[in-house]
Amino acid sequence: MSSTSTAINVPESSTDATGKAAAVSTPIIATSAVKRLGGWRRGIAILDFILRLCAIVAALAATITMGTTDQTLPFFTQFFQFEASYDDLPTFTFFVIGNAIVSGYLVLSLPFSIVTIVRPHAVGIRFLLVLFDTAMLALSTAASSAAAAIVYLAHNGNSSANWIAICQQFNDFCQRISGAVVASFIAAAIFIVIVIMSACALRRP
Amino acid sequence: MSSTSTAINVPESSTDATGKAAAVSTPIIATSAVKRLGGWRRGIAILDFILRLCAIVAALAATITMGTTDQTLPFFTQFFQFEASYDDLPTFTFFVIGNAIVSGYLVLSLPFSIVTIVRPHAVGIRFLLVLFDTAMLALSTAASSAAAAIVYLAHNGNSSANWIAICQQFNDFCQRISGAVVASFIAAAIFIVIVIMSACALRRP
Repeated sequence: MSSTSTAINVPESSTDATGKAAAVSTPIIATSAVKRLGGWRRGIAILDFILRLCAIVAALAATITMGTTDQTLPFFTQFFQFEASYDDLPTFTFFVIGNAIVSGYLVLSLPFSIVTIVRPHAVGIRFLLVLFDTAMLALSTAASSAAAAIVYLAHNGNSSANWIAICQQFNDFCQRISGAVVASFIAAAIFIVIVIMSACALRRP
Repeated sequence: MSSTSTAINVPESSTDATGKAAAVSTPIIATSAVKRLGGWRRGIAILDFILRLCAIVAALAATITMGTTDQTLPFFTQFFQFEASYDDLPTFTFFVIGNAIVSGYLVLSLPFSIVTIVRPHAVGIRFLLVLFDTAMLALSTAASSAAAAIVYLAHNGNSSANWIAICQQFNDFCQRISGAVVASFIAAAIFIVIVIMSACALRRP
């Protein structure tokens, strides 16, 4: 007890009443500040939840559009029927798998997002979400841009490499895969906003 | 003063000496905890700086390897000389520009990274870094994976779309662009680690 009593002597230069008043009122101010911060943290958590719903729609739309696209041309030769499907190109298979993983993750992350709405100060869960969101942002961007590179090639071809544009023949196919790529890019953009918002909510006041 | 004196009366149930001891010792514990937290925050800031240096090397290597690759085949016809360069394919141009932007950003971010080492509790600068790091992670991943899709096509071709593999002819060119893509993916992976570490340092204790 003697070691603590030497520490007590330090603020005794001020009057005793105000010294105690400061000691008591500080936690009260801190509590109200925490409540106020909890307010905007909860706002961010609700916005996070809504953005996750939008991202689910975008990623699922991209997956389904790409996964179900299939065009058979109305003419065929003796040996060959002209058909275009997403699994003709490995990049589009990666696109479908990547966006399916992203959609699945987003659905699984919804309960955790709800927990951050109920408890805006739950740091651990929010940090876990940032961790996986960052990985999924990378996956979503990778799938989108790889597919975009191939879609560009399908539309324009490349004379240097002697790759012909296939969109003159497979017009319907090309329109659908372009739509899927756009939807996937929207999901990736939403992920960027989610990660930045979560980092903002994580930071110390 | 009467309103504060009513607030003072609350902790009076304990002895006066221990009540004051608690009030005085709490800031001392808090200060030591903050110092301890500053310790691991500084460690993360130093690791962040080192990772940024590694990412600069990877992104610059990717840019320069892709930007300087140029192969002319030793045979030519009357009308055409066989030459492969990165600007034959728009995706590779995007790759070079994207990685150049990422390299430039990383060099510019180094001073800010040093500031977070000197002042581990500077929240604003760290948040600014997370914001731009996330955007650059997306750019780096997009450039890498778009180029990877084309490199895969150059190596393997695609029989469905009737795109031939060009790597049999342009072997040296293909090896160099493959190396550039690998370097760019390393830079993107480092960015993921940087973003997650910054989010970890940002979070409240």
